Amino acid sequence: MYEVELKLRADHESLRERLDDVGANWVEHRRQVDTYYDAPHRSFADTDEALRIRREEPADGDDVTKLTYKGPLIEAASKTREEHETAVNDDEALQGVLAGLGFEPAAVVEKDRTYFDFDEYTVVLDAVDGLGEFVEIEREVPEAEVEAAREEAIGLLERLGLDPDEQIRTSYLGLLLAADD
Amino acid sequence: MYEVELKLRADHESLRERLDDVGANWVEHRRQVDTYYDAPHRSFADTDEALRIRREEPADGDDVTKLTYKGPLIEAASKTREEHETAVNDDEALQGVLAGLGFEPAAVVEKDRTYFDFDEYTVVLDAVDGLGEFVEIEREVPEAEVEAAREEAIGLLERLGLDPDEQIRTSYLGLLLAADD
Repeated sequence: MYEVELKLRADHESLRERLDDVGANWVEHRRQVDTYYDAPHRSFADTDEALRIRREEPADGDDVTKLTYKGPLIEAASKTREEHETAVNDDEALQGVLAGLGFEPAAVVEKDRTYFDFDEYTVVLDAVDGLGEFVEIEREVPEAEVEAAREEAIGLLERLGLDPDEQIRTSYLGLLLAADD
Repeated sequence: MYEVELKLRADHESLRERLDDVGANWVEHRRQVDTYYDAPHRSFADTDEALRIRREEPADGDDVTKLTYKGPLIEAASKTREEHETAVNDDEALQGVLAGLGFEPAAVVEKDRTYFDFDEYTVVLDAVDGLGEFVEIEREVPEAEVEAAREEAIGLLERLGLDPDEQIRTSYLGLLLAADD
C-alpha cells in the first residue's frame, strides 16, 4: 500500500468548525514524540528516506512505540512513499537494536495530533512544537489508485475551505531543521 | 544486561530424566523459525554480530515475532554478548523496514525448543532441523556478575551429567553454514 498525503498550514480553530460543518467525525487525540535516525551507510537526507521511532501517548490508554521506515518519494506531487510500520513492545530494546547496528538519533519532532474521519480519508490536525498548526489529509491505497486518491484529497481540502495550492511538501523534520539554520 | 549462555550437544531422552531427577521444572515448548539478516554496511560474519527475526509458534497461543540484535562477544569463554530484543506486532512490516534499509535475509534456522527452570537458570532443549539435539543453559545478569554466573552454570551442567568441556561456541547458524560447505 502507498500513503497519499497532502499537508498545509491551517488555523485549527476555524478548521474545526469546517470539519463539523461537513460532517467529519472526531476520532482521537494523541501526543507524538518522533525520533528520527541517521543511517551508518547512507545519508537519508540525500536518499530521501526516513527511519523513525514514534512514541504515542493516547489521551486514554498505554503509550505505544512504533518503528517506521519511509522510502523515497515515488510520486512527488502527492508526497507518496512506500512506508512500513509496526508497533514494538520494548522501546528501550528497539533503541538498543538501532544503536547496535550503527543508527544514531538525529532529531526529535514533538506534536499534539487530533484525528478526524472524512469520507474515506483521515484528516489530521497537528500542533507541532516550534512550528505551529498544520492539517494533513491522508489515505492508504494500492499503487494503481494513487493519482485518483490525490485528486479526491484535493477536492476534500477545497470543501474544508483550504487552498490545495498552498501544499507544503517539506516534512516537519525538514521544516524544523530549516528553522534551526 | 548480558546473556551468559553455554551450549552442548546432548541426548534429550536421557537429559529429560536428569532434569526430572534434579527438580528442574518444565516451562513450555515452542517451534522457532529464525531468519538471519546480512547488513548493507558491514559483514556480520567479520564483526561477529547478528540481526534476526524470530517467529515463535507456542504450543498454545498466537505466533509471536521478535526482532533481536546480538553484539560481538564480550567474554569469549561463556559466549557473553550484549543483546537487545523486542516483540513486534507486524512481521511483514518489520521485513519491509529491514528490506528498505538494505538488510537482506541470509539464512534460516528452524528448531523445536523446550524450556525448563533450573535454579536461577533457564535450561533449553533444542532439536535443530538438520543439526540434531542440543542443550543450552542461560541467564541474564549485569556485567559485573558475568564471570560468577558462568561458573555457576558450569556447576549446573555437571549436576545434569554433562561435560562442560564439550561446550560448543559456534551458533546454530554457524553450524548450519559449516554443514553446507
